[in-house]
Amino acid sequence: MSLLVVGSVALDTLETPAGRADDAVGGAATYFAYAASFFTPVRMVGAVGADFPQAVLDDLAARGVDIAGVEKLAGTTLRWSGRYHQALNVRDTLHLDLGVFADFDPKIPESYRDSEYAFLANIDPALQSRVLDQLRGPRLIGCDTMNHWIQESRAVLEPLLRRVDMLIINDEEAELLTGERNVVKAAGKILDGGPRSVLIKRGEYGVIEFSPNTIFAVPAYPLEEVRDPTGAGDCFAGGVMGELARSGDMTPQGLRRAIVYGSVMGSFVVEDFGPKRLLGLTREMIEERYKLFVSLTDIPR
Amino acid sequence: MSLLVVGSVALDTLETPAGRADDAVGGAATYFAYAASFFTPVRMVGAVGADFPQAVLDDLAARGVDIAGVEKLAGTTLRWSGRYHQALNVRDTLHLDLGVFADFDPKIPESYRDSEYAFLANIDPALQSRVLDQLRGPRLIGCDTMNHWIQESRAVLEPLLRRVDMLIINDEEAELLTGERNVVKAAGKILDGGPRSVLIKRGEYGVIEFSPNTIFAVPAYPLEEVRDPTGAGDCFAGGVMGELARSGDMTPQGLRRAIVYGSVMGSFVVEDFGPKRLLGLTREMIEERYKLFVSLTDIPR
Repeated sequence: MSLLVVGSVALDTLETPAGRADDAVGGAATYFAYAASFFTPVRMVGAVGADFPQAVLDDLAARGVDIAGVEKLAGTTLRWSGRYHQALNVRDTLHLDLGVFADFDPKIPESYRDSEYAFLANIDPALQSRVLDQLRGPRLIGCDTMNHWIQESRAVLEPLLRRVDMLIINDEEAELLTGERNVVKAAGKILDGGPRSVLIKRGEYGVIEFSPNTIFAVPAYPLEEVRDPTGAGDCFAGGVMGELARSGDMTPQGLRRAIVYGSVMGSFVVEDFGPKRLLGLTREMIEERYKLFVSLTDIPR
Repeated sequence: MSLLVVGSVALDTLETPAGRADDAVGGAATYFAYAASFFTPVRMVGAVGADFPQAVLDDLAARGVDIAGVEKLAGTTLRWSGRYHQALNVRDTLHLDLGVFADFDPKIPESYRDSEYAFLANIDPALQSRVLDQLRGPRLIGCDTMNHWIQESRAVLEPLLRRVDMLIINDEEAELLTGERNVVKAAGKILDGGPRSVLIKRGEYGVIEFSPNTIFAVPAYPLEEVRDPTGAGDCFAGGVMGELARSGDMTPQGLRRAIVYGSVMGSFVVEDFGPKRLLGLTREMIEERYKLFVSLTDIPR
């Protein structure tokens, strides 16, 4: 079923201990769309400048991503350069040029407004709220945010979270949002604040999901080499939301399956720079890795 | 079947964000023995001073722990005081008095030498080696160590590891031992160095186990409050080795089951100060938490 994503589209220059990539395709909406496209048709809203390669948009379209909502504006695409440390959870921003993203004000095309599933990637919560205002009652709204908005825009973020079904954030963000270091207490406070499910990303340790009556934890797939962690969280969200939109199964079992597909997509994307690893994936490879997650975690009864 | 543990016995003064405990029973061998005693008879080797409460030894004996190998020496018991930070994986040693532990030279009673399962808790690897010299071919040898020995006694530790079946260490120790930050690479090097299985403890994130042909990851049980992390790793090892000694099942499935029982015991002990939480446990409570681990991690096929 129809899955909308709204967020950044970027060109990234990436330095990691494994190497370097210049002008790699980036941005949360892009990674999300690539990952989700393996599961369901995606509708993408973002903004690019004249410098953004048309071939990438064409490739997304060929993968079933509707790019009618990607505005092409005069100016340059959001550009980010970052350098990761040996500890890949730490990175420095070397350069940031917002370009057309500075004035990004997402307009949801009429043809997208009936989207049944929507993901608000990490942008200003005021913009995320305005996206929801333009939708006609989606079945499931997923949302990401970041430290900056938690610190600077709490008064806008908290009402937004009351409109959201599923919050997907990392452990640092969960602590900052709630003031609780303990993940169980943090999740409890988040669920009190609106979402009926919170997925807390823990980097190389995986993900833990809390709903009012159940907890689900899945480790990250142990990889011998993580070449570039960029986009892991957005591909995770893309896998989760993509599978939920595909199956329509919102039961605890359906959600678990989606979280594992999310983990699968996150585990693939970090194997190469930018979204490169996703480009050659097949559904068969995804199913194969899903089975690896099952065998990685299977506890004898 | 017979399970031997050799290690420290201590009296700890513990300060954590949740409170304080004075002269709590501590030491790796003690925690291990308490945890393993729920699964199998335990034979314990250690040393205590005249100040160690006889009631504790009597309680251990009542739990099926053979304390013939616990030497009572003139002098004082190893005493450690520590203070944990809000981030419970960080602690400061406030005071350390080795007491009789300074000259600990484990003597394995004749009645213990046929032990089929043996765990070398964290002591000088030279002493760990001498313990093995005194045993008559155990079926399974488990071993712990710590940063100090990796840095100061590598020349003794490495030959010891070639005699060990299962190494149980934490992620920092695995990195220090191998020079590899990546857990897959670190585990590969450890397996090359002797053990046929390595269990890497990741604190609140759980445990990951590597054998030559399989990987098993289990998250820690998400607890709303961790009152005192002391002994979690030793209780984990006690549960793992205790269950293996009980079942005799060294298949990958048997090892997985043991690792989950270890995780269960680790999750219980941190719920109160010292080993207090273990004292009131029943097998039924252990089985119940085992089932919680199954439901926490269960991935739909």
